Amino acid sequence: MPREITAFSNPLVKQVRSLRDKKHRREAGLFIAEGLRILTEAREAGFLPKILFYGAGTRHPLLATLVAEVEAASGEVIETNADILHKLSGKDNPQTMLGVFEQFDTSLERIDREAAPLWIVAQALRDPGNLGTILRTGDAVGAGGLILVDDCVDLFSVEAVRASMGALFTQRIAAARWEEFVAWLRTGEGALIGTSLAATLDYQEPLYAKPAFILVGNEAQGLPADYEAECDLLVKIPMTGKADSLNAAVATAVMAYEVVNQWRR
Amino acid sequence: MPREITAFSNPLVKQVRSLRDKKHRREAGLFIAEGLRILTEAREAGFLPKILFYGAGTRHPLLATLVAEVEAASGEVIETNADILHKLSGKDNPQTMLGVFEQFDTSLERIDREAAPLWIVAQALRDPGNLGTILRTGDAVGAGGLILVDDCVDLFSVEAVRASMGALFTQRIAAARWEEFVAWLRTGEGALIGTSLAATLDYQEPLYAKPAFILVGNEAQGLPADYEAECDLLVKIPMTGKADSLNAAVATAVMAYEVVNQWRR
Repeated sequence: MPREITAFSNPLVKQVRSLRDKKHRREAGLFIAEGLRILTEAREAGFLPKILFYGAGTRHPLLATLVAEVEAASGEVIETNADILHKLSGKDNPQTMLGVFEQFDTSLERIDREAAPLWIVAQALRDPGNLGTILRTGDAVGAGGLILVDDCVDLFSVEAVRASMGALFTQRIAAARWEEFVAWLRTGEGALIGTSLAATLDYQEPLYAKPAFILVGNEAQGLPADYEAECDLLVKIPMTGKADSLNAAVATAVMAYEVVNQWRR
Repeated sequence: MPREITAFSNPLVKQVRSLRDKKHRREAGLFIAEGLRILTEAREAGFLPKILFYGAGTRHPLLATLVAEVEAASGEVIETNADILHKLSGKDNPQTMLGVFEQFDTSLERIDREAAPLWIVAQALRDPGNLGTILRTGDAVGAGGLILVDDCVDLFSVEAVRASMGALFTQRIAAARWEEFVAWLRTGEGALIGTSLAATLDYQEPLYAKPAFILVGNEAQGLPADYEAECDLLVKIPMTGKADSLNAAVATAVMAYEVVNQWRR
């Protein structure tokens, strides 16, 4: 039976609200995902929330399924109101439901490069929206997942989860230092493809082999020179305007679509 | 001579800070753009701030140029400190300078479709980051500008300006109701190209003619059915994952790069 919570002062409400902060997320090993759509993607990928909050009066067949499955898995189900959901999500128009999930293991060993022809590697990514958007794009192009290199923004931040539209649960995600990643990469097949403003090779010229690892750099700095030197291919996306760069998530998508478009010809 | 302001209580500081709010921006007809890079893009595109704030101790040849030009144009130049810049920008790590600009005219008549082969049209766009990112992409692909249809997020919001990385000043931007836009579109050459999840035509199949108008729909709803019906071409970007859509700015970029890649072959 769902428990009912309507008091802001409830300790569980306070605890879950604290998960909007990275420090608390890390200590608790938990994170928040909001909305029926993302919770459904999570469930289909085999992830159930430990705690499920939903607004009283929410009627949806998938909610009933979620409630039953969370309870069957000894999770907690909480019926609450829009004010509490607003407080938990920090959004003016909160979703009608919200799940608290366990953070998952992001060790490089969990990546099976043979499971997909394409992988995305992001270095020192700072913007949670970009991180989530890159995951969403990865899902769309059939990438296996995302490898976060060096100090990236927290994968489990509310904004990253939101922008991923559920791809956080369907893409395999790892985090590693650069040296660690390169050592792992070179134990098997796979070309590392970097995009660079300084490159002379047009991104539509090479024929990309599988598996391809697309490497995208930090939003402000791009890739460090020695990271570019490690790339098997360094290509440029042509730009004709005044600006000299694309948004990191946009550049990743343009590059990824070129690669998969070649493969489907 | 730059005036010095270091007090939070200064009326000008309060007024400029209020420009982070849409209502105040609209009433004052002003908006904020931050950072040397964006201010330089603005200047090169012929836009000087009415008020220029910079942190004491900032040394850059372009700042000196900006200061001289703003003063020559009877604008106001204010030397201030990091705390005030933080207060004005709302960012933890504020840029070292910030300009207050006059909002510009966004009437459809300002669009000269013959000035560029490609134009982007966004309908009911809600996210300021997406709006700015689409402007930045438009600049990169050589689009002439962006036409905002129906109720979009405020073009002059701090987040949109920031995400545009200066393209707000280099792209021609108009706002119109759908009926108004369609009436204008049909007075001249140009194909309206919509992307739709329901389309059956792969986006790489058609040969795109100039001028091309790429139409992108609202983040959550996509394009209304009657808007899709108005399109000369309705295409789909293939997606192979669990998710059924791309981020709006990503979809715009993937579509725009297909069009310009065809043209440069």
